[in-house]
Amino acid sequence: MPVGYVQIPVGIAGPLLLDDREFSVPMATTEGCLVASTNRGCKAIYVSGGASSVVLRDAMTRAPVVRFGTAKRAAELKFFLEDPLNFEALSLVFNSSSRFARLQSIKCAIAGKNLYIRFSCSTGDAMGMNMVSKGVQNVMGFLHKEFPDMDVIGISGNYCSDKKPAAVNWIEGRGKSVVCEAIIKEEVVKKVLKTDVESLVELNMLKNLTGSAMAGALGGFNAHASNIVSAIFIATGQDPAQNIESSHCITMMEAVNDGKDLHVSVTMPSIEVGTVGGGTQLASQSACLNLLGVKGASKEAPGSKSRQLATIVAGAVLAGELSLMSALAAGQLVKSHMKYNRSNKDVSKASS
Amino acid sequence: MPVGYVQIPVGIAGPLLLDDREFSVPMATTEGCLVASTNRGCKAIYVSGGASSVVLRDAMTRAPVVRFGTAKRAAELKFFLEDPLNFEALSLVFNSSSRFARLQSIKCAIAGKNLYIRFSCSTGDAMGMNMVSKGVQNVMGFLHKEFPDMDVIGISGNYCSDKKPAAVNWIEGRGKSVVCEAIIKEEVVKKVLKTDVESLVELNMLKNLTGSAMAGALGGFNAHASNIVSAIFIATGQDPAQNIESSHCITMMEAVNDGKDLHVSVTMPSIEVGTVGGGTQLASQSACLNLLGVKGASKEAPGSKSRQLATIVAGAVLAGELSLMSALAAGQLVKSHMKYNRSNKDVSKASS
Amino acid sequence: MPVGYVQIPVGIAGPLLLDDREFSVPMATTEGCLVASTNRGCKAIYVSGGASSVVLRDAMTRAPVVRFGTAKRAAELKFFLEDPLNFEALSLVFNSSSRFARLQSIKCAIAGKNLYIRFSCSTGDAMGMNMVSKGVQNVMGFLHKEFPDMDVIGISGNYCSDKKPAAVNWIEGRGKSVVCEAIIKEEVVKKVLKTDVESLVELNMLKNLTGSAMAGALGGFNAHASNIVSAIFIATGQDPAQNIESSHCITMMEAVNDGKDLHVSVTMPSIEVGTVGGGTQLASQSACLNLLGVKGASKEAPGSKSRQLATIVAGAVLAGELSLMSALAAGQLVKSHMKYNRSNKDVSKASS
Amino acid sequence: MPVGYVQIPVGIAGPLLLDDREFSVPMATTEGCLVASTNRGCKAIYVSGGASSVVLRDAMTRAPVVRFGTAKRAAELKFFLEDPLNFEALSLVFNSSSRFARLQSIKCAIAGKNLYIRFSCSTGDAMGMNMVSKGVQNVMGFLHKEFPDMDVIGISGNYCSDKKPAAVNWIEGRGKSVVCEAIIKEEVVKKVLKTDVESLVELNMLKNLTGSAMAGALGGFNAHASNIVSAIFIATGQDPAQNIESSHCITMMEAVNDGKDLHVSVTMPSIEVGTVGGGTQLASQSACLNLLGVKGASKEAPGSKSRQLATIVAGAVLAGELSLMSALAAGQLVKSHMKYNRSNKDVSKASS
Repeated sequence: MPVGYVQIPVGIAGPLLLDDREFSVPMATTEGCLVASTNRGCKAIYVSGGASSVVLRDAMTRAPVVRFGTAKRAAELKFFLEDPLNFEALSLVFNSSSRFARLQSIKCAIAGKNLYIRFSCSTGDAMGMNMVSKGVQNVMGFLHKEFPDMDVIGISGNYCSDKKPAAVNWIEGRGKSVVCEAIIKEEVVKKVLKTDVESLVELNMLKNLTGSAMAGALGGFNAHASNIVSAIFIATGQDPAQNIESSHCITMMEAVNDGKDLHVSVTMPSIEVGTVGGGTQLASQSACLNLLGVKGASKEAPGSKSRQLATIVAGAVLAGELSLMSALAAGQLVKSHMKYNRSNKDVSKASS
Repeated sequence: MPVGYVQIPVGIAGPLLLDDREFSVPMATTEGCLVASTNRGCKAIYVSGGASSVVLRDAMTRAPVVRFGTAKRAAELKFFLEDPLNFEALSLVFNSSSRFARLQSIKCAIAGKNLYIRFSCSTGDAMGMNMVSKGVQNVMGFLHKEFPDMDVIGISGNYCSDKKPAAVNWIEGRGKSVVCEAIIKEEVVKKVLKTDVESLVELNMLKNLTGSAMAGALGGFNAHASNIVSAIFIATGQDPAQNIESSHCITMMEAVNDGKDLHVSVTMPSIEVGTVGGGTQLASQSACLNLLGVKGASKEAPGSKSRQLATIVAGAVLAGELSLMSALAAGQLVKSHMKYNRSNKDVSKASS
Repeated sequence: MPVGYVQIPVGIAGPLLLDDREFSVPMATTEGCLVASTNRGCKAIYVSGGASSVVLRDAMTRAPVVRFGTAKRAAELKFFLEDPLNFEALSLVFNSSSRFARLQSIKCAIAGKNLYIRFSCSTGDAMGMNMVSKGVQNVMGFLHKEFPDMDVIGISGNYCSDKKPAAVNWIEGRGKSVVCEAIIKEEVVKKVLKTDVESLVELNMLKNLTGSAMAGALGGFNAHASNIVSAIFIATGQDPAQNIESSHCITMMEAVNDGKDLHVSVTMPSIEVGTVGGGTQLASQSACLNLLGVKGASKEAPGSKSRQLATIVAGAVLAGELSLMSALAAGQLVKSHMKYNRSNKDVSKASS
Repeated sequence: MPVGYVQIPVGIAGPLLLDDREFSVPMATTEGCLVASTNRGCKAIYVSGGASSVVLRDAMTRAPVVRFGTAKRAAELKFFLEDPLNFEALSLVFNSSSRFARLQSIKCAIAGKNLYIRFSCSTGDAMGMNMVSKGVQNVMGFLHKEFPDMDVIGISGNYCSDKKPAAVNWIEGRGKSVVCEAIIKEEVVKKVLKTDVESLVELNMLKNLTGSAMAGALGGFNAHASNIVSAIFIATGQDPAQNIESSHCITMMEAVNDGKDLHVSVTMPSIEVGTVGGGTQLASQSACLNLLGVKGASKEAPGSKSRQLATIVAGAVLAGELSLMSALAAGQLVKSHMKYNRSNKDVSKASS
């Protein structure tokens, strides 16, 4: 029972032209210039013909940790779980937890006599954490019969990995894995983004790739993906704590068409969103989902709405990256004149 | 200009007894059981005599990337910036950006002919990103006179590192670095947390340390720090996108007093919070800061309010870790009986 | 044509009792105490009944990077490569490179319009880098017919990942993935290792798990695996540059049998070794392989000799970890008396 | 007492023209083409006017882990150790371990009530592990008087971090931190390296930066630094197990002079080498050090010889990167013609 509510201002960025559809993207943030900046990116994408996206993967994960008396026994369970011959039986048990849960794969990691079992399953239009947890519960019970000496230490052993920066999500993916791209015309880079292709390509290489490498980043090869992710997550009733892995993103900027135009892309392996359950049922959040046309569960194609939401998140991140990177690149040009004591306003805007 | 607002339910956890003071902790979340769970942890801490915290460091960072014609020149600037003899002059220029900004240190990283310059400074009670950015602007202008061949590529080169998981924050710290601890008595672990010390110590070793190690985690050696961090951040008007590094946390659980009692601690190197500016000025968020007694800027001790807020975040995370880990550990006991086909409700609660 | 040779002293550690067989382990190192220390670990294992190992996986990898005009096209190739229906055709092309190469799996990673294709294949008793590279060459030629717009940027795109610390190897494995374990009896810990179970368990938690977590380690949750790995690699003609990923290791120490005895294990996901080709043909290295009974290729069971060598490496690492950790733990006891000004020799021995 | 010796063939690469001096670089490797490849890189550097290097830092580290009853006490020791007022006293105690050891800095990391204390000190021309360990021993004894409740768990707590891939070394440096660069003329790239500047710049961005980012690399943003590092380490009697952190390297390739020429650099933060002690005393290794003119300790400038050796390692890595990257890039050109069914030999040479 809440004692009250905090109100977060919602702004609309867009239209975001994505896969030939237009979206008005709701962003809940206390930083007004974030919406304005994302909006500028949407405009650059729009006048360039729009962005397109591909959903590479869709599966939520949960990984219990179990312990045996020996590593040999832990390995036996690993081989059992990874044996294709057992997959159907395991799926039957796992999927009984929900009419949407569909086991996709099982990946095991051994640390001595302890085994971490990462279950991946599709979860319809729900973000799916509870669904996968119930499925895992069922499987644990089933395995107890085959492996009575298995000691379940915890239903989550952090190999899932939920709400922490972890390479397993960056490499395997969690939730929706999406890549989104656009080609921004030379004149649009100049007129809308106030910079040039060469400066953007160079800044991306030195900041998002090299700078992050120097900082020892994990899945953080972008300018400010988490700004956009958290703003949309809060507006649409997602779990804001999950923006940690949902913001994993590598932003690429490459010159195309003989160096005249810019190919920009964001690759995000673990966007964790749902269009049913949790915060999506609250009034204002529900309204934001409606604005995007992705409220509720899809009857005909379970999961299609949550996947659509994931592509919108990626598309908005693409717009946000374009705009902030351009502000930084423009700042660079200004700075190069700094020796002539010109002032520079744009740059202090940079929020990442 | 926002088109409207989303409302996030606010619950109160506590009283959190921290450093001999009681705090009612506002948490904005759509997951009611998160407040209840944190509340249980606060109770366990309270009846055990309370938690205590230490602020280890307080400094915001910003790292521009500059380029030279050669690595030799980049190294010369590095040596110049790290020379103690130049610190006073650089501080004078940097600090002129605000009456609160105080340059603390400069750390450089070289990648060939490109130099990443990480400025660390105290920022009073503000989170401080804009303040440090302005200070950096001033220094860049100053450096242009000494190093006219310096080309400023971007005011942020991702070595800061803002809103991305990066080792530089985990190792150097960003914002407030806090450690918070408590000793939970044996009977409290049994009666309030429904588990036992040995199970908690073992689960922490296998989940928060070993499981995260297997997952390739970076600063993610905890159960669900980000749940608590994001809930308090949203309630108090912090930047929710910064929960990525603000949630970096290692949770330790060790048996003390001949194995009878539990020593639990959370170490969080980069909690980025402020009590002035940004979202803290909004009505409901401002009310939440008031509830904690940390609204606005401290006249007598600049920074003391934002540091206080950081310790509250850490204290609440300590409570949250205690409670979820106990639910998981209790689940384990239940599971050990699963072969007798007993059902288990607690475990599916686990949100991480 | 070499101008000469450097000589590395070879010592023998053992007998290492592993999977009921005895091995005399050749170690090429200039640090004599390393052999003595490993030898002590072997003795502790021997008198406790020996160690046992399991090979969890055996596959070498190579990952070219290819580029397309759009991410959409890169995704199409990814789906094509991961489609089970295409696996047989791809295997046929890949395996034609050698009578030992057997394609096991293909894992793709997308970064915008660039695709990294990680091929995993078994390579008989060879370490297998050249074999897999040739197979990849064949597949690239084959794919050019299906995807004429595919531009091969490099036969290795660092997603392999060879001779660099990378999470993809820690999580997916490369070469041989091995877990090795032993239970050391209480009296053996006291008499042979001069310490006690509790101290070892505690040191392992604070050094190999927590200390490495604080240091931002990647697959480096051990005391000095690389000392043993490089010594055996040099003695047996392996590629010493590959000890980077071959030394990835998590060492676990847990009290068993009511806390009386010690369960110790090492889990090593990417041991890259071969018993044919490369340096294994040199006289002295060949002699060391003979000493271990793993020289050359196995006719009846291709790959069995190189897998055997991998288990010996893991077994020797187990011994090395036991011994150094014991020296450190013993040092701790001594240090606790330091206030009485007792001197301590053991500790400075610690080489990691 | 060794039972014998293994012989590793030694080849000579060079002359390497570095900082206006010529070096014949001994490489101990069983892979002959590695020497030939590095030699080609040396030639490209030579005819372009040579490479230049800067030593950014020179300090070996050791980090014991100590435990207190509370985090508060651990923090008190941290503040004590980081207080400039105590540095002189601590240095006096630390430096008494050797006439070369000079304490440079102390960096602490807290995990609850456990403190990791990373001591950094210069060690003359020795690699310095034993020297720093002895200094740490002295300080531990000294601290026991001030903090009698300090429990030394281990003289090494893995925060050092020795022989494991760890961000603390990548970010703080260990041993010698070196950057080495060269500008390769357009015609040299064409005639000697058989490729072009644009292809190299693109390959470096997609392989060494992007590919490694996708792989979750830590300090592994290069093509095959460890090949060269381990070959020189073995030839000159260094500790081959230390090539793990000594091979940390980011290779940058940027077009300069209006895109005509190539600026190439390697930045290596933790090259751990010595010219006295350990394997450097062995006959053949000693001869290799003599060949480089860096045998023994420098009387007039302690440390200058080991620093010189570190720059040679970096210079040779620069050559090795140039050559392998060119082979890969040339392979790419060939592959682009593959659709015309041309064969390609170069590429399978790629060893990383």
